[in-house]
Amino acid sequence: MQAPVLSNPVLAIPVLAGPPRGTYLRRCWYVVGWADALGESPQDRIFLEEPVALFRDEAGVAHAVGGRCPHRFAPLGQGRVLGGALACPYHGLRFDAQGACVHNPHPGGQLPAARLPVYPLVERHGLLWIWMGEAEVADPALIPDFAWLTDPAWAVVRGATRAEGHYELYSDNILDLSHANFVHPALVARAFTEGERRFWQDGETVHAEYVRLDDTLSNGIGAMLGRVGQPQDFYGEVTWHAPAVLRFDYVAGPPGTPRDACTLLPSLHAFTPETPDTTHYVWATGRDFALGDAAFSQAMQAALEHAFEREDMPIIRDSHRLMRGADFWSLKPLVLGGDGGGIRARRLLQRLIAREQGAALPQDNEADA
Amino acid sequence: MQAPVLSNPVLAIPVLAGPPRGTYLRRCWYVVGWADALGESPQDRIFLEEPVALFRDEAGVAHAVGGRCPHRFAPLGQGRVLGGALACPYHGLRFDAQGACVHNPHPGGQLPAARLPVYPLVERHGLLWIWMGEAEVADPALIPDFAWLTDPAWAVVRGATRAEGHYELYSDNILDLSHANFVHPALVARAFTEGERRFWQDGETVHAEYVRLDDTLSNGIGAMLGRVGQPQDFYGEVTWHAPAVLRFDYVAGPPGTPRDACTLLPSLHAFTPETPDTTHYVWATGRDFALGDAAFSQAMQAALEHAFEREDMPIIRDSHRLMRGADFWSLKPLVLGGDGGGIRARRLLQRLIAREQGAALPQDNEADA
Amino acid sequence: MQAPVLSNPVLAIPVLAGPPRGTYLRRCWYVVGWADALGESPQDRIFLEEPVALFRDEAGVAHAVGGRCPHRFAPLGQGRVLGGALACPYHGLRFDAQGACVHNPHPGGQLPAARLPVYPLVERHGLLWIWMGEAEVADPALIPDFAWLTDPAWAVVRGATRAEGHYELYSDNILDLSHANFVHPALVARAFTEGERRFWQDGETVHAEYVRLDDTLSNGIGAMLGRVGQPQDFYGEVTWHAPAVLRFDYVAGPPGTPRDACTLLPSLHAFTPETPDTTHYVWATGRDFALGDAAFSQAMQAALEHAFEREDMPIIRDSHRLMRGADFWSLKPLVLGGDGGGIRARRLLQRLIAREQGAALPQDNEADA
Repeated sequence: MQAPVLSNPVLAIPVLAGPPRGTYLRRCWYVVGWADALGESPQDRIFLEEPVALFRDEAGVAHAVGGRCPHRFAPLGQGRVLGGALACPYHGLRFDAQGACVHNPHPGGQLPAARLPVYPLVERHGLLWIWMGEAEVADPALIPDFAWLTDPAWAVVRGATRAEGHYELYSDNILDLSHANFVHPALVARAFTEGERRFWQDGETVHAEYVRLDDTLSNGIGAMLGRVGQPQDFYGEVTWHAPAVLRFDYVAGPPGTPRDACTLLPSLHAFTPETPDTTHYVWATGRDFALGDAAFSQAMQAALEHAFEREDMPIIRDSHRLMRGADFWSLKPLVLGGDGGGIRARRLLQRLIAREQGAALPQDNEADA
Repeated sequence: MQAPVLSNPVLAIPVLAGPPRGTYLRRCWYVVGWADALGESPQDRIFLEEPVALFRDEAGVAHAVGGRCPHRFAPLGQGRVLGGALACPYHGLRFDAQGACVHNPHPGGQLPAARLPVYPLVERHGLLWIWMGEAEVADPALIPDFAWLTDPAWAVVRGATRAEGHYELYSDNILDLSHANFVHPALVARAFTEGERRFWQDGETVHAEYVRLDDTLSNGIGAMLGRVGQPQDFYGEVTWHAPAVLRFDYVAGPPGTPRDACTLLPSLHAFTPETPDTTHYVWATGRDFALGDAAFSQAMQAALEHAFEREDMPIIRDSHRLMRGADFWSLKPLVLGGDGGGIRARRLLQRLIAREQGAALPQDNEADA
Repeated sequence: MQAPVLSNPVLAIPVLAGPPRGTYLRRCWYVVGWADALGESPQDRIFLEEPVALFRDEAGVAHAVGGRCPHRFAPLGQGRVLGGALACPYHGLRFDAQGACVHNPHPGGQLPAARLPVYPLVERHGLLWIWMGEAEVADPALIPDFAWLTDPAWAVVRGATRAEGHYELYSDNILDLSHANFVHPALVARAFTEGERRFWQDGETVHAEYVRLDDTLSNGIGAMLGRVGQPQDFYGEVTWHAPAVLRFDYVAGPPGTPRDACTLLPSLHAFTPETPDTTHYVWATGRDFALGDAAFSQAMQAALEHAFEREDMPIIRDSHRLMRGADFWSLKPLVLGGDGGGIRARRLLQRLIAREQGAALPQDNEADA
């Protein structure tokens, strides 16, 4: 009779209104999206509240420049690529990958001195990675290793979408795998709620590990592994890279199998802030069996898309809304054992941002969760 | 060629953004909705800008607790009831009707000390009533009498919806029945515009009475009473209970019939603020004739739903928008005779809120409208 | 895989929230819309952030009064005209064209002293023009001449819509015809990018002139003129009237034809601010050939509607969004030669507003663009 207040299937398109509201880590690599989704047409995106235009030059090399034309503020990412340069869709100024105006189609044709911001962009592992900080310190060696994404030994299903909610809520979600039992009951059963778990920080990564021996797979993951109803040893291994790029390895095998002899399903979950209220979400899961089986891939794609986009996203969106724009810590969240990963990641990110901004580092003072 | 600016059929879903904006009467009973609409699944709602989760325990008793999980702020009203407790849809903490965490499904299983707010909830007259103030002063005896809603001597048609506009605009609407002549011309004719009327306050209720003798019913209400084209004596009696629960008795009979021998169509109109811009609207109308006539009920349901949801709601929504968030009195509204009920109710509500907040009472200084 | 962020086909209905945000020229004529679109039913509109009700009296004369009823703030433009007066749709008060309440349908029937704002309204050239400043200085002689709109020697296609984006961005768009080459490639080719152009101010109008001799028409405009593939001399002549009413004459003929012997396609582009973020856009284009050819008119209508509403509007909307509510000048726009018209219009409008508000005039200090 009365629809629930919070479950709104429509993602409102955020309009950048007013000055930037968030503070972000900038000297790091954010995932833009799938490299093969950027073809001949440029793309317009918002990252960290900044408009960015993505395009490929004549050699097919992908570039990212400021997405707002300095002339009349048109979205450059809605333009075309002409002669390897990005042409504004409004009055036709063209900019090269260095942000310089290289063509003025108007009488006289003088090239204005205006330059677009240029964002280092790297194509690796089938993904585009963008550096939102100073170009001179952009180091592609810092890109986390997701080589399985393009390794022919792996079949990969994947997605990319926009999600409502702060990006840290999304990385919290992956670091606390216990949510799967409640949010994805058809896919993943007790494994991550009832097993052992461990959280630790290693340099600038944060790790979560879940271990559950000799238990029964839920039907969803059981079907994916062809082991419905068979007891297994499970391992869930999550690695968080600042600010919000995560690898999640789902590992399972018959009880007693050495861990490295188990079946591995590696996943990517990359979250790039669009605004403080919206997040670009790029995900993938690989398998090293049934490689040529299109029906298998289709079923796996559908199951994961449902889990990530129809189960995770709504509850994170609604949690975000119920926070009403307040700072996470100001709401005094109840901390449970399973938050040991998310809390570490949040505190580390806070320190990294503070360090980057030249502020004194806050004391590292985390509770042992 | 150009759509009207104001008539937007889509109700935007309000997002709770920023701190609460309104001041509400709290020590009173608000209508939540129809009791039978709350079944095995919990419900998530916003009342007075606060998230509330509604659920039934194993004995079927309905409860209301804070709707935001203290762990990760997920909407508890989207969870499930397990063992009579409300389970968070995100990480599975369970809370009982006293707001205590009674189950932690995670390793160790220690129960966190966090407690949810608990809102007294009463099921009466087929409705759920919620008390948004201190539980220790919640007195079910203060719930207005709508016994006809569940009395088998009455057939009831009813609805529940969300409406755009401040809740006081909605109670103003019922107290000034003269609007019916203009907003519901097919349903109700001159009766409430041209007749006699009287407004008065009685303790903490406000009353409006309309009397029109020996006039012709409009076709809509005439058809409902089976008296198309026949002159009638009409009476409209409205009782307002703070903050916005109204009974409206429509009374009609052949000229000269004693009032208590006339046909009575009692109505409930209950308005519960969701936000300062949106209102939960629960309505019902009863009859004590044609009790088993389903076609009659269907026609009556359709006519009233059209009147309340397609005629009243848009004009109140648009009036609300044209107020641009300003305080009602700051706009210096023109006061007509028909506002005698609404003005009394607004002033009384203002005094009740001020009293509740321990502020000095403003002088009662109302014009005799 | 991922929809572009900026291209949202849905125009959000603006809600007037909070106090007015813009400063507007008021002592001038704004285009309301097409006169024949205002029939027996009143219209509700927002102009310059003010609600306005439009209606015709019994003699068919169009009037504009304040659109918010002083009683309960209902939108008067959603009411009816009764006895030549505008009846409020909510409680039936009626107001005449002078804004006086002339009928109170409620008992007693005393006429309240409240008066609506009255806006001078003139019907001319098939359009309604509204004066948003003091009535006593409203001078219909100031209405620009668009006599061709109703001259039987001209066949006219036309439109009226609401557009997202600040109105000055819309007049900029017409004054810089070079956009056509990029935004309307099917309709207009190089003519306005590569030709000669000249910009000047003449009293309180601003002019832009484009001249391109002996070039080939693009297929779209070629088809419209029946000259596909034939070289032509082109002239584009734009006249801007403060604040945002423009005439655009498209002139073309075989090379060497005297300009006044060429074919003329005159256009109206009128922009009336609704809010700082939305604009009423009224357009028309005339021709003095194929006058009775309905199929021709239909094709011309479709081509222009596509150009103005599907090509211009989205890019202006997205540019507006990327400005994030900032003042145009504060963003330090890159000024190109083609901006000579828009810049002059912006500066002149700024001076006219400052003069109107009694402020000292800023120094006229414009770069020769």
